[in-house]
Amino acid sequence: MKVCLECLPCFLSQTIKTMRRITHDEKAVRDVLNSVCRILPRQPENATPAEIGREVYRLISLKTGVADPYRELKEQCTRRALKIYPDMKQRVERSQDRLLTAAKMAIAGNIIDFGADTVFELEKDVEAVLSRPFGINHFPDFAASIKSAGRIVYLGDNAGETVFDRILIEEISAPVIYTVRSAPVINDAVKKDAEEAGIPDAARIETSGCDAPGTILSKCTPKFRKLLGKADVIISKGQGNYEALSGKNLPIFFLLTAKCQAVARDLGVVPGDIVLKRAG
Amino acid sequence: MKVCLECLPCFLSQTIKTMRRITHDEKAVRDVLNSVCRILPRQPENATPAEIGREVYRLISLKTGVADPYRELKEQCTRRALKIYPDMKQRVERSQDRLLTAAKMAIAGNIIDFGADTVFELEKDVEAVLSRPFGINHFPDFAASIKSAGRIVYLGDNAGETVFDRILIEEISAPVIYTVRSAPVINDAVKKDAEEAGIPDAARIETSGCDAPGTILSKCTPKFRKLLGKADVIISKGQGNYEALSGKNLPIFFLLTAKCQAVARDLGVVPGDIVLKRAG
Repeated sequence: MKVCLECLPCFLSQTIKTMRRITHDEKAVRDVLNSVCRILPRQPENATPAEIGREVYRLISLKTGVADPYRELKEQCTRRALKIYPDMKQRVERSQDRLLTAAKMAIAGNIIDFGADTVFELEKDVEAVLSRPFGINHFPDFAASIKSAGRIVYLGDNAGETVFDRILIEEISAPVIYTVRSAPVINDAVKKDAEEAGIPDAARIETSGCDAPGTILSKCTPKFRKLLGKADVIISKGQGNYEALSGKNLPIFFLLTAKCQAVARDLGVVPGDIVLKRAG
Repeated sequence: MKVCLECLPCFLSQTIKTMRRITHDEKAVRDVLNSVCRILPRQPENATPAEIGREVYRLISLKTGVADPYRELKEQCTRRALKIYPDMKQRVERSQDRLLTAAKMAIAGNIIDFGADTVFELEKDVEAVLSRPFGINHFPDFAASIKSAGRIVYLGDNAGETVFDRILIEEISAPVIYTVRSAPVINDAVKKDAEEAGIPDAARIETSGCDAPGTILSKCTPKFRKLLGKADVIISKGQGNYEALSGKNLPIFFLLTAKCQAVARDLGVVPGDIVLKRAG
């Protein structure tokens, strides 16, 4: 997915949000914001939002010396998701279609803004997603593909959401490789976040080599690209991975909630819609 | 009011919005957006949003050769406001406190986004503002000042809103000078817009010499500054004039709706609040 005009102001807003996690010094925030303003015009017109996001977050880290501004928030997110994990498991067990419920739960994990919600709201939001119809629904195809697949690669997205990913993985009988970013970027899960979510009980964890908020293939390790090339099914979570991988010739199913106008428009849905979409 | 960090992404969003009125060529929009990104870091830290807004909109006009991208929308706004003018007048006449109702009406004119609303919604929005309590209410002081004032200067804001300003001016017995921008910027009223709204029936129109979306004194003519200096009361409409004049030692009453977080925070209210505030 190509970057949209609306992504540019969004990158500035993201910079402010991230900088406010690092410092209370408005002058320091303005300084970094100015630097981001200067690099935006240099980004290629056909870059994906994930590629520009990588540059923006690298610049923030470089300028501030803070490699992982979302560390604490990510740990909180995981703890809060783990708190409702037993209830979520019960819901899957009681449901008529376990895989469908688990897939919707994994998508629910993508909608929740852990930064603002309380535990009560977290449960309410999951509830809301479970009862919502899909904006795009390729679930029957997904279920058939999962059933016959030998090798499945699961591309993780945010910390905390990882717990919901685990619920879906636990409904899949084939072995799953769960992949995470190699270095922190925004609240995206790295290996530590996946471990804290209990992923090792359900899947083998691999890192992608990538430090962007999305799986940019050219920034991934050859080993990771080989892994993707051999996969029968790739489950891709979240907007960032969609931005980076839409249009690639791979057996991907995108599971996400459309959170912004740019991604929603690209998918042909409206913001807030939940999506399970086969690539191509 | 000093520019806030949040103003920077907002300037990019405003650029996109304005450029989309001028062209459907996304590449041309990106080009201007890049230019705006480049000038933002050069703006002084203590600049007001109105001052930076002036630079941004001048750049858009310079790059596109379009001096007044909101011309058509402004005319529409005035026509739509004139349509409900007789009803609004009746409401003032039937009200217990004519000046209060008229002042609230002038503030209502500032809240309405003419670009999106239908006539029905326009009436509904005015209704909503009229029944809403003030976030800041210096009306008793305003009423007393208006009563004793010999010279009143009224700083206009947007086209269309001008019709609502006329309603307030018609309740004031002292002579009023209504001032507008000297050159088009966003949907701010220029002389033509004030004339189309029927202002000449109620007040003498003067231009400020300023082409910013707010009354920046250093960009105004000496004649206009003298006018302000002699005024017993200055009625300042809208966010832009507040941004440029808050903190100045002048007998100003600010009448506005807080439309963004930055201005609301500066005023100590919440976005959506209606404000009638004495300067200082």
